[in-house]
Amino acid sequence: MSQSPVVGILGGGQLGRMSAFAARRMGLQVRFLIPEPSPPVEHLGEVVVADWHDPRVLRAFAEGCDVVTTESEWAPLDLLAEHAPSHVAVWPSPRTLRLIRHKGIQKQHLKEAGLPVPDFTWAHTREEALEAATHYGFPVLFKRFQRSYDGYGNATVHNEEEAREAWNRLADEDGLLVERFVPFRRELATLVARTPSGDEVTYPTVWTEQRDHRCYAVMAPAAIDTRSEQYIRTLADRTMQAFEGVGLLAIELFELEDGSLLINELAPRPHNTAHYTIEACYTSQFENHIRAVLDWPLGVPDLKVPAATMVNLLGHRTGTATPQGIPRALAVPRVSLHIYDKRRVTPGRKMGHVTACGDSIEETRRLAEQAASAIQF
Amino acid sequence: MSQSPVVGILGGGQLGRMSAFAARRMGLQVRFLIPEPSPPVEHLGEVVVADWHDPRVLRAFAEGCDVVTTESEWAPLDLLAEHAPSHVAVWPSPRTLRLIRHKGIQKQHLKEAGLPVPDFTWAHTREEALEAATHYGFPVLFKRFQRSYDGYGNATVHNEEEAREAWNRLADEDGLLVERFVPFRRELATLVARTPSGDEVTYPTVWTEQRDHRCYAVMAPAAIDTRSEQYIRTLADRTMQAFEGVGLLAIELFELEDGSLLINELAPRPHNTAHYTIEACYTSQFENHIRAVLDWPLGVPDLKVPAATMVNLLGHRTGTATPQGIPRALAVPRVSLHIYDKRRVTPGRKMGHVTACGDSIEETRRLAEQAASAIQF
Repeated sequence: MSQSPVVGILGGGQLGRMSAFAARRMGLQVRFLIPEPSPPVEHLGEVVVADWHDPRVLRAFAEGCDVVTTESEWAPLDLLAEHAPSHVAVWPSPRTLRLIRHKGIQKQHLKEAGLPVPDFTWAHTREEALEAATHYGFPVLFKRFQRSYDGYGNATVHNEEEAREAWNRLADEDGLLVERFVPFRRELATLVARTPSGDEVTYPTVWTEQRDHRCYAVMAPAAIDTRSEQYIRTLADRTMQAFEGVGLLAIELFELEDGSLLINELAPRPHNTAHYTIEACYTSQFENHIRAVLDWPLGVPDLKVPAATMVNLLGHRTGTATPQGIPRALAVPRVSLHIYDKRRVTPGRKMGHVTACGDSIEETRRLAEQAASAIQF
Repeated sequence: MSQSPVVGILGGGQLGRMSAFAARRMGLQVRFLIPEPSPPVEHLGEVVVADWHDPRVLRAFAEGCDVVTTESEWAPLDLLAEHAPSHVAVWPSPRTLRLIRHKGIQKQHLKEAGLPVPDFTWAHTREEALEAATHYGFPVLFKRFQRSYDGYGNATVHNEEEAREAWNRLADEDGLLVERFVPFRRELATLVARTPSGDEVTYPTVWTEQRDHRCYAVMAPAAIDTRSEQYIRTLADRTMQAFEGVGLLAIELFELEDGSLLINELAPRPHNTAHYTIEACYTSQFENHIRAVLDWPLGVPDLKVPAATMVNLLGHRTGTATPQGIPRALAVPRVSLHIYDKRRVTPGRKMGHVTACGDSIEETRRLAEQAASAIQF
């Protein structure tokens, strides 16, 4: 290549923002396509604000890029792939997106590939949903098939009445997903990066803590034994193969009381559970995302520090974002601060995160929580 | 503070670029003032291209900022300080800039503060220069007082004829600096960050290797004993005090054969010898630069990995920059690549750098050199 490649990104949130930081550092040009103005990616590259369902918009956008990727599985990257000129690479592929976007299809595909998942039923009708719930026993999970994230679109159902209410709220035309409640001990996560040529690296397994269905903290490395780590790496590799992933694939797992593991959910993009990689690993998830879609050699994913903890900075009110307490947070040692530059805050909205690096999970968790608690939006 | 501060930066090179990356990560807004368009800072913030010696331009630029700083001691930050509204902080101060910009004043000030420097003479006339050269004995160094960097403006003079030639080339109205040649064993460097409130941190001492008067490689940490490290930290602190520095102060040192140390040169800004801090330290020089000028608490400057080596990517020809070999460089493990996005390449121009992190200087130096040698512009 004689000129620095141009990387197109669909989406204008924090994942696009941090991908752009990684790309720009390596001298790449970044173009964003977003349906409406988005402060997190302002002044980070060329920003195209247009109707991203319009084939002419998608074609014109893709023409200026060497590769186009996405920060969200819900962005119309599959539509772009249909209309992009043939010299433009588009990753992840429409097939990968189709297999992951719909939770029913995703779970079915995992199961057919022989990968361990909680028991589930694709309920087409309310009666089927109630029947499955009764079969698994309450409490049981009802999950919307599409566009559910951070707890939106999921319900823990304790009885028939709640089941009816949840059905009315969550069911799509093709029904919803009923899933056996798994009494897990911890939630874990890992992340795989893969190039079109087949180069593949797997990040360390991390321990993720959810509060109110949202990622609260991520601790790296997860305190698991070598055999479990090896097993998770095997699962990750098999999942990547099964979904024909290129770019990143985030894998969230349940660790049960007996130590066994089930795959909870997949995402074909940079993931909140791997933000810690920016400071704690030799190569961040964002850099490996960019390297992967360009079919460049992948970077070493290993931790370069003994331990790290990331804590999300979430909104607690509705209004204009006015970050407060930043100097107080920065007084905490060995903490790196990331503010996403969102202008509006809503309860639960991800406004930023902090990562502490250090010698132990206990120490870094204490530092990260101390810094995070100093900041309000 | 209720809104994210706006940081103004004079200059549009790689130091401004990397300062902006650090500021943006923390959610700050960045504004650049540059006299002509500069690709390294394009799409990284608001860019004002205007005559930066015009007081009206400086006032209007400063009015939109909470603090203004610089990537270069040659930018007219002192002029801006004269014309900025009183609520706008400007760092480093005009006094610090004045004491550092002129090599004669800088050396004199170091000496008067009792800090160790090579013998030097402020030669006002060619005769004084020749006399000093004869006194020190050839070879001797002739240095231009202002705007000398990367070997431009310095000459190693071996005889009277060369001395006359160098005088004609390098002397300003007020003469030039004649300096005794120091047969040093190694060159070392350190970096201090300080806030207006007096918070101060010192980075580890590093070993810097020059080739053709340019920084070729930087190895962290320098293999020096604890007492020398302590002594350098004391020198760094005393220098920061003597120059009333706020922001960053880079200190380059000569280590003589007997282990004694002399201060070679100062720079009141982010410095090439501390680029390694981005990946290798808990807080990068660029982040601490931004924190310092905002009077925010400074971050921990310590290494978070056992060792790191940075190697510069220099131009070797004249023309349009076309980076080649990047995938080959990225195939080298544990290397981070920084390309500054300069559109023109000239011999010796700093086009980017690579940093390798690892367990030893030997290992990281091998990796960084391997990656750097793969890239051409």
